[in-house]
Amino acid sequence: MMLELSTWCEVKEYLKTKKVIIIPVGSTEQHGPMGLMGTDFICPEFIARGVSDQTKTLVAPTLTIGMSQHHLAFPGSITLRPTTLIAVIKDVIHSLAGHGFTHLFFLNGHGGNVDSVKTAFSEVYAEHSFSKRPSSVHLQLCNWYGGKRLKKVQTRYFKTGEGSHATPSEISLSFYAHPGSVKKADLTPRVAPNHPFRDSSDFSDKFPDGRIGSDSSLASPEIGKEIFEAAVRDVLDAYELFLNPDIPA
Amino acid sequence: MMLELSTWCEVKEYLKTKKVIIIPVGSTEQHGPMGLMGTDFICPEFIARGVSDQTKTLVAPTLTIGMSQHHLAFPGSITLRPTTLIAVIKDVIHSLAGHGFTHLFFLNGHGGNVDSVKTAFSEVYAEHSFSKRPSSVHLQLCNWYGGKRLKKVQTRYFKTGEGSHATPSEISLSFYAHPGSVKKADLTPRVAPNHPFRDSSDFSDKFPDGRIGSDSSLASPEIGKEIFEAAVRDVLDAYELFLNPDIPA
Amino acid sequence: MMLELSTWCEVKEYLKTKKVIIIPVGSTEQHGPMGLMGTDFICPEFIARGVSDQTKTLVAPTLTIGMSQHHLAFPGSITLRPTTLIAVIKDVIHSLAGHGFTHLFFLNGHGGNVDSVKTAFSEVYAEHSFSKRPSSVHLQLCNWYGGKRLKKVQTRYFKTGEGSHATPSEISLSFYAHPGSVKKADLTPRVAPNHPFRDSSDFSDKFPDGRIGSDSSLASPEIGKEIFEAAVRDVLDAYELFLNPDIPA
Amino acid sequence: MMLELSTWCEVKEYLKTKKVIIIPVGSTEQHGPMGLMGTDFICPEFIARGVSDQTKTLVAPTLTIGMSQHHLAFPGSITLRPTTLIAVIKDVIHSLAGHGFTHLFFLNGHGGNVDSVKTAFSEVYAEHSFSKRPSSVHLQLCNWYGGKRLKKVQTRYFKTGEGSHATPSEISLSFYAHPGSVKKADLTPRVAPNHPFRDSSDFSDKFPDGRIGSDSSLASPEIGKEIFEAAVRDVLDAYELFLNPDIPA
Amino acid sequence: MMLELSTWCEVKEYLKTKKVIIIPVGSTEQHGPMGLMGTDFICPEFIARGVSDQTKTLVAPTLTIGMSQHHLAFPGSITLRPTTLIAVIKDVIHSLAGHGFTHLFFLNGHGGNVDSVKTAFSEVYAEHSFSKRPSSVHLQLCNWYGGKRLKKVQTRYFKTGEGSHATPSEISLSFYAHPGSVKKADLTPRVAPNHPFRDSSDFSDKFPDGRIGSDSSLASPEIGKEIFEAAVRDVLDAYELFLNPDIPA
Amino acid sequence: MMLELSTWCEVKEYLKTKKVIIIPVGSTEQHGPMGLMGTDFICPEFIARGVSDQTKTLVAPTLTIGMSQHHLAFPGSITLRPTTLIAVIKDVIHSLAGHGFTHLFFLNGHGGNVDSVKTAFSEVYAEHSFSKRPSSVHLQLCNWYGGKRLKKVQTRYFKTGEGSHATPSEISLSFYAHPGSVKKADLTPRVAPNHPFRDSSDFSDKFPDGRIGSDSSLASPEIGKEIFEAAVRDVLDAYELFLNPDIPA
Repeated sequence: MMLELSTWCEVKEYLKTKKVIIIPVGSTEQHGPMGLMGTDFICPEFIARGVSDQTKTLVAPTLTIGMSQHHLAFPGSITLRPTTLIAVIKDVIHSLAGHGFTHLFFLNGHGGNVDSVKTAFSEVYAEHSFSKRPSSVHLQLCNWYGGKRLKKVQTRYFKTGEGSHATPSEISLSFYAHPGSVKKADLTPRVAPNHPFRDSSDFSDKFPDGRIGSDSSLASPEIGKEIFEAAVRDVLDAYELFLNPDIPA
Repeated sequence: MMLELSTWCEVKEYLKTKKVIIIPVGSTEQHGPMGLMGTDFICPEFIARGVSDQTKTLVAPTLTIGMSQHHLAFPGSITLRPTTLIAVIKDVIHSLAGHGFTHLFFLNGHGGNVDSVKTAFSEVYAEHSFSKRPSSVHLQLCNWYGGKRLKKVQTRYFKTGEGSHATPSEISLSFYAHPGSVKKADLTPRVAPNHPFRDSSDFSDKFPDGRIGSDSSLASPEIGKEIFEAAVRDVLDAYELFLNPDIPA
Repeated sequence: MMLELSTWCEVKEYLKTKKVIIIPVGSTEQHGPMGLMGTDFICPEFIARGVSDQTKTLVAPTLTIGMSQHHLAFPGSITLRPTTLIAVIKDVIHSLAGHGFTHLFFLNGHGGNVDSVKTAFSEVYAEHSFSKRPSSVHLQLCNWYGGKRLKKVQTRYFKTGEGSHATPSEISLSFYAHPGSVKKADLTPRVAPNHPFRDSSDFSDKFPDGRIGSDSSLASPEIGKEIFEAAVRDVLDAYELFLNPDIPA
Repeated sequence: MMLELSTWCEVKEYLKTKKVIIIPVGSTEQHGPMGLMGTDFICPEFIARGVSDQTKTLVAPTLTIGMSQHHLAFPGSITLRPTTLIAVIKDVIHSLAGHGFTHLFFLNGHGGNVDSVKTAFSEVYAEHSFSKRPSSVHLQLCNWYGGKRLKKVQTRYFKTGEGSHATPSEISLSFYAHPGSVKKADLTPRVAPNHPFRDSSDFSDKFPDGRIGSDSSLASPEIGKEIFEAAVRDVLDAYELFLNPDIPA
Repeated sequence: MMLELSTWCEVKEYLKTKKVIIIPVGSTEQHGPMGLMGTDFICPEFIARGVSDQTKTLVAPTLTIGMSQHHLAFPGSITLRPTTLIAVIKDVIHSLAGHGFTHLFFLNGHGGNVDSVKTAFSEVYAEHSFSKRPSSVHLQLCNWYGGKRLKKVQTRYFKTGEGSHATPSEISLSFYAHPGSVKKADLTPRVAPNHPFRDSSDFSDKFPDGRIGSDSSLASPEIGKEIFEAAVRDVLDAYELFLNPDIPA
Repeated sequence: MMLELSTWCEVKEYLKTKKVIIIPVGSTEQHGPMGLMGTDFICPEFIARGVSDQTKTLVAPTLTIGMSQHHLAFPGSITLRPTTLIAVIKDVIHSLAGHGFTHLFFLNGHGGNVDSVKTAFSEVYAEHSFSKRPSSVHLQLCNWYGGKRLKKVQTRYFKTGEGSHATPSEISLSFYAHPGSVKKADLTPRVAPNHPFRDSSDFSDKFPDGRIGSDSSLASPEIGKEIFEAAVRDVLDAYELFLNPDIPA
């Protein structure tokens, strides 16, 4: 159930029985010579729909611009400052909490968002802690790419070259989601280097074609399908745990 | 050409000959009992693609959350504070200007965004004015719904009941874009009232089902097709004028 | 009744029967070779007094600095950043609302202020919408120069050369208000050019003497008197409509 | 020479020989049962004109709203938050510094503004210190009421009851500036109490009629004339020292 | 070498050969019935001195207040909002970078700081990425408690009850640093519960005495000495890797 | 009683009988060729402990970084922007007020902090004034160096050369507090010059070795002891007056 394709009356009806919503959050940034600029939001959006198909959970519109400052040397990359992203997440939380949603599940597709999104959560909680009004919302950040079933698929197909940016996993998934946009490129070296990085000029010095540690050419829509299925199930686990957190953190 | 489905190499190639980009900006808010929550971003996104088909202009990912504070009494509506939206628009501008885009065409689907987006433009220009570094970017806000061809279609189909929120025009267009999500509802009264409004409680007092001055039930995907074609041509005019502004403002 | 020349006891007395206040808001910016830097605050202040004379409405001190970033290339122009102006307007609203004023009528003299002031209104309303505490205030922005009676005077005297900045209308009015400060200048060309503009260097490139589309030399204190009388009546209409908004917006 | 009554061409001419400007800054707040709400901006504005008459210094429009949070319990008082006032002062400084003014003399009429205005100065200087670009501006805050000649007048007329808010000195000066607005009131007690204070409810608890330590009834326009003359000479001394600071601070 | 006990001339001398500085960052928050409020800044400060003893690295004054919103229900806990902590870290970075320090090693003692500190790093880098001026600084956040030697000590002494807040490890270390402040308390239950948490009221509901998953009573100054020695060596490894990052991240 | 060496249970116990806390606030900045970078926080921290020894008042961890923008040209100086310091002070106040502390005594060691700290107080009070919720806290800023007993000691030992930065008084006190860090330096001239100053480049131009008006070489730990004793008694007076303000301000 997509929020954007629902009416407010349908949302009102939904809230009578469910108080949870999934918010896909990603970024618009270079993903190497053959990865799509939208990879990091296409993936969580696609998986959110997969999770929603099984759970009938409402899915909010995807937040398509994230914190991608380090990619700004590559044409087309768009970033929010971290503090802007914090403000966005806060407003989204306040909007949804006001409607009675109690569980907000941010399904994330971009590592660069993690600190800012979690800082936004703390900002929201801090308001409650300062004012002594208990918060009604539970906030969760879940990366779509962190689970164990996905790991197995990756191990099978990408013995080397998974890397950490423009990975064959995320590119496969984005190709599966957008089969009309499968790209090819000659990658030199096949497996990109791997380093810590800082700002965008440091990043582009170290990663001339934008990839980190990955061999994007291993990607295919077919593997994308397997990744999708594994990741949906991984995320479902995290989602269930979020709703029923009997297991200590 | 969609930015999200392009690689950075393709964007680099694009920038060799074109420096313009279209950024659809909308909102996620109630649109009455039969309008989709995403109406205001679905419409500019859809029209942006229509314009892009004819001009081969790059289209950025849609900004799906806008300034919709007055709709917060209706379940599912999400808003940014005006100052948050200003920050978002500024960061998007700075990102794109840094890549060498000189003409940013924000195609807007929500009246509530106008003041904030234009204020963001002034913030960006003010930085340049204070620092005496001339700005390299031209910024334009264009509402998809303001042109004369559209007016003709509206006059033909919606003699009464176009109104200003949850209009049959925007609902028709969103239904044309998402034929699987056509909704129906009994509307009472058929034509909604019309008043100035303030915050969300004032809004919901005056407009109990969320519509302003409109009769959404006049909407249909078929009319949406005509609206689409008219609006694309209207927006193309504005787009051309933006790139070639020989006519004094 | 001027707030600045009243005591708090007199304001307290006033509030027993009236809850409305007029806040003139303008700017300090170049107005071409013969226009006063203060034109845009002198005019709304002067008209506010005219309206107050007839309605006995309280008038707040004039906000003399507005959003004039595009004029910074001309010596003496002072601007607030848009976000600063937003903060100022918000604090003024919160101050006055706290005293029980329910209707705040911002009488504006500068087009560049409009987006920021209206964004400030939305910021205030958004606080209420997020917190679900209905707002007690009605906020209105009224440009002194937008009415139909004024239009008639302009059509009579300024067949060409009214333009949009350093207009003979506003200069006439400021001269009528300050007859000791009537200025003269040779204007070349008589009617200034007209273009869209961006930051201050773009502005001064396009408008070398600061005027936009206007022939300031048509101005005179005598016409200013007629403009004053027409504009006061126009603003009175808007003021009455604000207090009694039975007509749908 | 008033900036608001000058053209930009006149300001350009002025800057060829002088780089100093006076900016009156005050507040709009209660001044007891017989003091004017505008006292704190009327006084510095009036004295600025006196100083300008003798020195031909340019005077900017008065900043009429200051930091008056503690007066909000009294109808009509308007305040900026301290951080808003800081933003305003910063923007004014940046605007004027950009035109080549090197000496900005803020003539202040309200004690509550001092911390915020000086903090704004530090904010501006901090930008330069962080970026290692030396600042071109000299910033001075001068209270009109702090000099020794004024002290003599006060000692002569107000042996008791000068106090620190709604003082007979400032009220006398405002009455001299606005002889048509002289007010009377029965004051009980004649000399108001004197305490430290915090927020507006604390303030109004301690000072029920708004005065602090003062007997406003001692005020008269005639004494106001003497105060004016003394204060103008005091401020002239400070102004000269600001331009020629050979004396170590 | 402690910055606070050095002169600027000594720092200048230091910078001729070394460009690295350690900044201990912690928090002031409850640590259960027998843990010190300062535990989280005492520990990194103490270890920083240990590292400095061996490497002669300059150590900045400890940032004693961190992001501890979730502890506010416990008397004495002090927190910065996340965005305040971000601003603090940014200013510290800008100050030190301006002096020519190229490597800033933030040695952290509080998990709640991590997101905010890393977000601050991104804010700094984003400024460089937007402006295309490469950053001169390398920023590292290192938790004192994350290394493998420490793990061994913990495994030896705290088979159960290490937990994640008010841990016997950190309490032992703080007791070793402040032997005069060793505290005792009856803990019920011995091992505290373990859950995810949100704001301060949620936290105090779940953890009535403030501990998370830990048995603080296992702490002793003697074990603290072993922890100190292990952690210093762990941090030295991270510090060396930071200065010589040949190993891909 | 040091907060950092207390448990939350001890703080809870303390609050049953006392509601006051001392917060030392200083800075980390150059203090000339022989003064310690930490002088301005070492002094108030040391005196706070002296006051606490006599009054059993709780002392919060010292805020070690203040507003020192003008010292940034000297290696090692660290500053917060004024607005950052304001945010820090606000958060500290809100944290402590939430625990029931009613009297917050900020013991300050750096003149550059004064405006920002007092502005923060006004920000806090302004929140209460706008919302009409009376504030529960009393806020006091006390400079350790302003009292009359200290003056006597200064007059006895430093007939010339006390100056206003890197003074022999503060250096003596810091040496007394840290006898292992006594420094020596040849000072030329013996007594530093004295001027108003602006940003850091202006500061270092005027004060090449960092001192203002002082002869730091007069400092000694022995005099520091006398200064300590005098200042503790001075501060005790101010502290008592803060708790029992029967004397009008």
